[in-house]
Amino acid sequence: MAVILITGASGFVGRHAVTALRGAGHEVHGLSRRPRVDEACIWHTVDVLDGAAVSRLFERVRPSHLLHFAWETEHGRYWTAPENLHWVEATLHLVRRFYSAGGQRFVGAGTCAEYAWDEAALGQGPVTELGALRRPRDLYGIAKGATFDLLTAYCARLSLSFAWGRLFFPYGAPDRRPTLMPSVIRALRCGQPARCTDGRQRRDFIHVRDAGAAFAALLTSEVTGPVNIASGAPTSIAEVVTLLGSLFGRPELIHLGALERPRGDPDCLFADVGRLRNEVGFVPKTELRGGLQETVAWWAEQPYEE
Amino acid sequence: MAVILITGASGFVGRHAVTALRGAGHEVHGLSRRPRVDEACIWHTVDVLDGAAVSRLFERVRPSHLLHFAWETEHGRYWTAPENLHWVEATLHLVRRFYSAGGQRFVGAGTCAEYAWDEAALGQGPVTELGALRRPRDLYGIAKGATFDLLTAYCARLSLSFAWGRLFFPYGAPDRRPTLMPSVIRALRCGQPARCTDGRQRRDFIHVRDAGAAFAALLTSEVTGPVNIASGAPTSIAEVVTLLGSLFGRPELIHLGALERPRGDPDCLFADVGRLRNEVGFVPKTELRGGLQETVAWWAEQPYEE
Repeated sequence: MAVILITGASGFVGRHAVTALRGAGHEVHGLSRRPRVDEACIWHTVDVLDGAAVSRLFERVRPSHLLHFAWETEHGRYWTAPENLHWVEATLHLVRRFYSAGGQRFVGAGTCAEYAWDEAALGQGPVTELGALRRPRDLYGIAKGATFDLLTAYCARLSLSFAWGRLFFPYGAPDRRPTLMPSVIRALRCGQPARCTDGRQRRDFIHVRDAGAAFAALLTSEVTGPVNIASGAPTSIAEVVTLLGSLFGRPELIHLGALERPRGDPDCLFADVGRLRNEVGFVPKTELRGGLQETVAWWAEQPYEE
Repeated sequence: MAVILITGASGFVGRHAVTALRGAGHEVHGLSRRPRVDEACIWHTVDVLDGAAVSRLFERVRPSHLLHFAWETEHGRYWTAPENLHWVEATLHLVRRFYSAGGQRFVGAGTCAEYAWDEAALGQGPVTELGALRRPRDLYGIAKGATFDLLTAYCARLSLSFAWGRLFFPYGAPDRRPTLMPSVIRALRCGQPARCTDGRQRRDFIHVRDAGAAFAALLTSEVTGPVNIASGAPTSIAEVVTLLGSLFGRPELIHLGALERPRGDPDCLFADVGRLRNEVGFVPKTELRGGLQETVAWWAEQPYEE
């Protein structure tokens, strides 16, 4: 049984990693900025940006495994937020302290934004961890990519086992950010038209429960280096929103082509999941249709906001 | 008049930057781990790795310009020392605090080890800041390179003026590290043979006083981005050691070809100094022969160690 510490353990993806690791019988310690009283894991109210508190916690808990999700994630802001630099700093401190306290294996949450997103680099094929060009565009991707480079070299030097999950596009409930699916669902539940781009761009969506479980599987494996956390299937935005329209019985509310696609939005961005499937041995369980049904069911229980 | 804060201000290169900036009439504050009593600048006994002390200092001094040299530099160790990670962390913290306290321009000390050092990448031409392949081999170069990437994106986001001096091979006195020149001088002054490689590899040496002055000039310029700090002249190791032999009047003690060249030691590594000369407007003053004479003169005043 591993003693596992998870940062961002109450977050969108983190909570599912907690569930998966608890289910597998591990001792799971969760960090959260706000006090929590549920019994999902052993909670510690610690801000990862508070280095002294992190140091004290490691001395007390002495985890063998560390799974690090916590980061600046405010929608619309996190891509360019200066706080990304503070999170790099906090992550390096976290890993140094983890090692000092006897830690054995570290897994961090990376992002598909570490890869180059321009057409020439992406083409129409899947992105492989070791073959794809890494050329992040925004401070967020640069911060995650630099952290990966630093920890790769540092952990190799110390023989600390290290893997890095590059997360593609997780979806599911609860998610109130004004991203694609919540925005379309919000419109549909009010009987309003959902104005979309042409929807031809393809993305790699993974249900958030699968994403959390994939990180859990990666943590308890011995796989090292970068591993894409994704479904491996390219799905067009049009397919997703059309499915949502039909789940609400209002396909006519989906207005494809009503919006311009943002500049620099890549045509096709999906993962090669060979490492996740064959080395980690993880296969996502939730198909897109079922995942969207579940998401819509969650929204049906939420009060209307306006 | 700028209010300038310099970390590593008592170090090999830092002390010369202090002299140059004092000479130009600026208010210069120097950080040093150990207490200092000389009047080279306004000294503050602060360990850059102590984040809280750094924060307090910035609130008190409120520098407009920050020149950052401090780093792990223990010879033979610094290439792969795990402490490199701690220095990245400290550097990011330093820049964040500098910005919070109203700082306007940051210049950091990078290294030629950020570039790829393999023959295929280097060829026989000079290394240009923006054209050369960046693929550091060791933790030290990776740490410096990642810091550069992070600060480039961070400073652009905050409109904080940022430049990065990539230092090639500084030499001069005082330098007791067991590197090429001190080792050869130590042998020669004892009348012992100086066993060398074939010496055909060419490097870009810059006298340490010029290196410090170049950083000072870069700091007070408005040039942004990476700038090579070097002479721009490729000089063979054979030429350097032959000169030393003749300065001691003992050319027969120089044994070229007595040692194997280390694996992966590049043939030719020198800088394109177009940015330093034309944009910063800095030209090194000390020629190699004069610089070596001065170095030998310093050694003549040192007691014998064995």
